[in-house]
Amino acid sequence: MTTTNRQVRLAARPAGEPRDTDWQHVEEPVGEPADGEFLVQVMYLSIDPAMRGWMNAGRSYIRPVEIGEVMRAGAVGRVTASRHPGFAVGDHVSGTFGVQEFCLSDGRGVTKVDPAAAPLPTYLGTLGMSGLTAYFGLIDIGRPEPGQTVVVSGAAGAVGSIVGQIAKILGCRVVGIAGGERKCRMVVEEFGFDAAIDYQSEDVRKALREHAPDGVDVYFDNVGGDILDAVLLRLARGARVVICGAVSQYNSTRPQGPANYMSLLVNRASMTGMVVFDYADRYAEGVARLAEWRAEGRLTSLEDVVPGGVAAFPETLMRLFRGANHGKLVLEVAGGKGTGTVIGEGGSR
Amino acid sequence: MTTTNRQVRLAARPAGEPRDTDWQHVEEPVGEPADGEFLVQVMYLSIDPAMRGWMNAGRSYIRPVEIGEVMRAGAVGRVTASRHPGFAVGDHVSGTFGVQEFCLSDGRGVTKVDPAAAPLPTYLGTLGMSGLTAYFGLIDIGRPEPGQTVVVSGAAGAVGSIVGQIAKILGCRVVGIAGGERKCRMVVEEFGFDAAIDYQSEDVRKALREHAPDGVDVYFDNVGGDILDAVLLRLARGARVVICGAVSQYNSTRPQGPANYMSLLVNRASMTGMVVFDYADRYAEGVARLAEWRAEGRLTSLEDVVPGGVAAFPETLMRLFRGANHGKLVLEVAGGKGTGTVIGEGGSR
Repeated sequence: MTTTNRQVRLAARPAGEPRDTDWQHVEEPVGEPADGEFLVQVMYLSIDPAMRGWMNAGRSYIRPVEIGEVMRAGAVGRVTASRHPGFAVGDHVSGTFGVQEFCLSDGRGVTKVDPAAAPLPTYLGTLGMSGLTAYFGLIDIGRPEPGQTVVVSGAAGAVGSIVGQIAKILGCRVVGIAGGERKCRMVVEEFGFDAAIDYQSEDVRKALREHAPDGVDVYFDNVGGDILDAVLLRLARGARVVICGAVSQYNSTRPQGPANYMSLLVNRASMTGMVVFDYADRYAEGVARLAEWRAEGRLTSLEDVVPGGVAAFPETLMRLFRGANHGKLVLEVAGGKGTGTVIGEGGSR
Repeated sequence: MTTTNRQVRLAARPAGEPRDTDWQHVEEPVGEPADGEFLVQVMYLSIDPAMRGWMNAGRSYIRPVEIGEVMRAGAVGRVTASRHPGFAVGDHVSGTFGVQEFCLSDGRGVTKVDPAAAPLPTYLGTLGMSGLTAYFGLIDIGRPEPGQTVVVSGAAGAVGSIVGQIAKILGCRVVGIAGGERKCRMVVEEFGFDAAIDYQSEDVRKALREHAPDGVDVYFDNVGGDILDAVLLRLARGARVVICGAVSQYNSTRPQGPANYMSLLVNRASMTGMVVFDYADRYAEGVARLAEWRAEGRLTSLEDVVPGGVAAFPETLMRLFRGANHGKLVLEVAGGKGTGTVIGEGGSR
């Protein structure tokens, strides 16, 4: 029976791109649940651009990860020991378990998931925070109307791919922006967007003139930088820009502001930031609709599951900033193999 | 009787700051009203930062002034000849009469004003577009609530000084940002703001920590640039940033975007552009409330009336970008003297 819990902790706050020396690989004994607690074996970790922000000091929408603390991460896993009345051994659960192999939990912020209804990594993507971010960001902040043009950056990514698919379901014309031919093909062929713009090989401004001839009514931005500036020049009157992320800027020590922001005035448009955690009391609504669309075959899930366990976390995170992932990036910790050899299964402690 | 109409026309589109060679000084005969028209002798011209934008080519919220065209300007004047049933000789009127001494009009977009109720320049400021911009921008876009903190840049200027006074009337805590000790004193002593920050001598970020300890709920921005960036770092949760102008950037060939725009995400805040012309069907509502507050002594008007006639327009416009004005900048064309010697008075044509 496994007794060691491998972890990745934050060793230093990075300046610019995180380096190996910003992480500390630690092994400690697997904890034992106290009364009211249970032990989760982490199976899959959600790898998110937002993680870069959590590594910084200073006020943000969530407290920073402290130096020496296990890196924060969303995850799915399996309960391997329990002294909690609501969670039994064998239950699959989703929660913020961190970059480690085992996590003790008192159940707060933890939800049960059903591995028969969807593959476990999907509970980190389409049916997890990525899907909910897309759902509430697009519907509540973007407020698209049928027939309007919705543009999404990071269109082949975890959130962007779902945003575009929901916008199609809502009757919009949808244009994705992504890097590289393969991603752009995926955006159109697998996710069903009306068009894709390859920012690596195309002039985004020119391509937007072609694909959004009447202007952009909703722009869902995951990337910031030059792409945000290009879309700002193409806004339709009354457009809504949803600021969900700025992956192009997270490792920059001198972030680039949108020089064309006065287009907000010219077009009487708005730019609004959103954080999915604010919608916690409506997660159930979001997941229900996402699951329904998925069951109807209208929402394609794509998870990019990378092996390697927690030791591979630092390099896996960097894949996001290099745009190397397709769909939701997930790190396998115990994964498929884990399900056969879960420790403590049937145990009584 | 005056027969010559002096005009200032746009000669070239400026790159950066407008220069003398961008203007053409023209004299042409004063026109005669056709049926359904009247002639206005321009008395006061409204000098506005937005004028700089109208000189640029390209799509904006209003069509550009064409090369060779009389420069667009809001103005008040007096009807000196009329073949229009709705406007009589001697009527005082407000409209977009342009940088010229006389303007023919068919009455569209022209409103009568009462020189007995307020000085004529006030109809360009508090009771004109400046007041309406402040009113609708603050109330409709800023949506301040009593007790909230409102920060205004360009606080000693035409729009900013009114924004702050309305915010005080609505029960807010109001902090103004202006350049120089004299303006800051005016902001507090004459306009009644709770505090003023002198961006020329103070660290704006530090001063905002002091004067907006609980964060900024509404930021009404007239200036852009570094001041916008400083305020973004101080936003309260759910803050509204009203983008009314960016006078610090209008002459820049490489405008500066707000590098701290991700504060919108951190604080779930929004940044929204506004153009007063969109509220045309509610101008009457706005003017009525502004006039009421003014009559009650709760709204101080300050007009900075500069003499010199239309020939002085180019240098007067530059005063705005040098921050040389206090309150509403107005260029006197016929003005006080004009009222005694208006041409065509009592005429019958």
